[in-house]
Amino acid sequence: MTVPPRRSRDVGQLVALARDGDPRAVARLLTLVENGDPLLPAIAAALAPYTGQAQVIGLTGSPGVGKSTTTNELVRAYRAAGHRVGVLAVDPSSPFTGGAILGDRVRMQDHATDAGVYIRSMSSRGHLGGLSAATPQAVRVLEGAGCDVVLVETVGVGQAEVEVASLADTTLVLLAPGMGDAIQAVKAGILEIADVFVINKADRDGADATYRDTQGMIALGERAAGQWRPQVVRAVAFRNEGIEDIVAAVAKHRAWLVETGEATARRERRAAAEIESIALGVLRARIGGLGEASVLDALAAAVAAGRLDPYAAADAVLERLHPA
Amino acid sequence: MTVPPRRSRDVGQLVALARDGDPRAVARLLTLVENGDPLLPAIAAALAPYTGQAQVIGLTGSPGVGKSTTTNELVRAYRAAGHRVGVLAVDPSSPFTGGAILGDRVRMQDHATDAGVYIRSMSSRGHLGGLSAATPQAVRVLEGAGCDVVLVETVGVGQAEVEVASLADTTLVLLAPGMGDAIQAVKAGILEIADVFVINKADRDGADATYRDTQGMIALGERAAGQWRPQVVRAVAFRNEGIEDIVAAVAKHRAWLVETGEATARRERRAAAEIESIALGVLRARIGGLGEASVLDALAAAVAAGRLDPYAAADAVLERLHPA
Repeated sequence: MTVPPRRSRDVGQLVALARDGDPRAVARLLTLVENGDPLLPAIAAALAPYTGQAQVIGLTGSPGVGKSTTTNELVRAYRAAGHRVGVLAVDPSSPFTGGAILGDRVRMQDHATDAGVYIRSMSSRGHLGGLSAATPQAVRVLEGAGCDVVLVETVGVGQAEVEVASLADTTLVLLAPGMGDAIQAVKAGILEIADVFVINKADRDGADATYRDTQGMIALGERAAGQWRPQVVRAVAFRNEGIEDIVAAVAKHRAWLVETGEATARRERRAAAEIESIALGVLRARIGGLGEASVLDALAAAVAAGRLDPYAAADAVLERLHPA
Repeated sequence: MTVPPRRSRDVGQLVALARDGDPRAVARLLTLVENGDPLLPAIAAALAPYTGQAQVIGLTGSPGVGKSTTTNELVRAYRAAGHRVGVLAVDPSSPFTGGAILGDRVRMQDHATDAGVYIRSMSSRGHLGGLSAATPQAVRVLEGAGCDVVLVETVGVGQAEVEVASLADTTLVLLAPGMGDAIQAVKAGILEIADVFVINKADRDGADATYRDTQGMIALGERAAGQWRPQVVRAVAFRNEGIEDIVAAVAKHRAWLVETGEATARRERRAAAEIESIALGVLRARIGGLGEASVLDALAAAVAAGRLDPYAAADAVLERLHPA
């Protein structure tokens, strides 16, 4: 068994083991990352030289649209092409257990004995409809462990879709006939984040209409010359139909990313967002610390009672945070 | 026509007009708030003495569940009871126009000539599935304008539900038969935010099953002694059936809030969150400013290339933000 690291120098050892393909070391790193362990900065520092190369593919869509099945088949396809594959499946937390509640992850056991695949279900930890804050770091762990393809699967509700898109090089949005019409997709702003639409369950009634509506939506969308035009692919994932078309569309998008320099630009934007998010997390914790000193509580009571406005209160908080 | 305020002292005038019931002054204040005008702190300061009293009711649910119709009927009911009512309808932005795309807000024109009702559609401004950051301030404007009931209606996708619940005294979650089963509600963590479930379209097939599933979910949920047990109400909003039951359930919840002291506690938590959010907004802008000075950009490029880890980069950002 891998000994839990207690000091930063153990982290180096753990990362070395993960790079050698020790699945327990990878699992241990993912757990430390998911728990927001104080060793996170040391882990990130040890992983940094090995990151930035993997292809990160986001996969999102409404519940029931076939995300897990599609992910499963994509893993199979990328494995067949000789890639090492990581999967992060981010499930909304159950209010009862704080963990993932659905059992469909079990299907992933197809790959349980394949040493070239790492699969991790992550809870979204109350960050409702959003990815766990640990997700970008978990992607780094999988990259560090030698995965050159990382699939991030998340339920497509609101914020999660945007977050998965900001994390991924290529974002797949799954639709299915009868799961809500194109106007709902527009309402959710999905056009902005999808690089490839997959019309799954394409053997069902209404699939042609969903396909046409999606194409129509894309045609209506404004995009500058040279911008990527979202692809639409039909699939019946549970019969392994259309998977090679998805892989081809992802490859086409990747080629476009590289050709236009957008690949690097996206990665830099992503890094900037990640840095900002970590810095804001530190600042948020400092503001929270003011609550323990009852400074924030007193200001909040004054605002709630109408004795103070929230902007003046925020100024007071900022002054406390770093006195001039 | 109301002259747009240019200076802080005009804000006082505008707030005074709004308090006198001038709808153009209210509309002008809402626009300033929605645009994040630099006068926002002055507006908040002028409104502060008149805030903290209104009953804020959140209303959320999946698209097509009947939110607008229910809101419309609730406005009618609260008006009949002599209340001044404000409505904020937060729609996800269209990727095409940046505005709300659905026309069902038109139904609200029922109340267009009623001086006791203010209605405002707010875009969610790219904050996908979330409320506009301006929403808490917009509630303050409506409170300042004398509304003692403010309804905040939002599409129930992910983050928006949590946000509307954190804003509201009482949160209504609308369900309808055939709109997805109870397990989806559990997945979305909806049990944690609903004070009252409304089974709308209760005349349809499957309504009894939806009612039973919802009750079953509530029965399974753990809650401490004295905690609120979510109510379940049936309605057919478009025929104005069950509206009085919704109003009664909201009143019961309000009585519980006041009795337990939770009303004040919620308002103080809300104020604390609002202060924190404003303070973090200021800090985020300062970090963004580092991007313009290309400090953040350089750090992001280093992280993207694997030369630096994001925690070390965040430390560098924080040092720049307020040098020790």
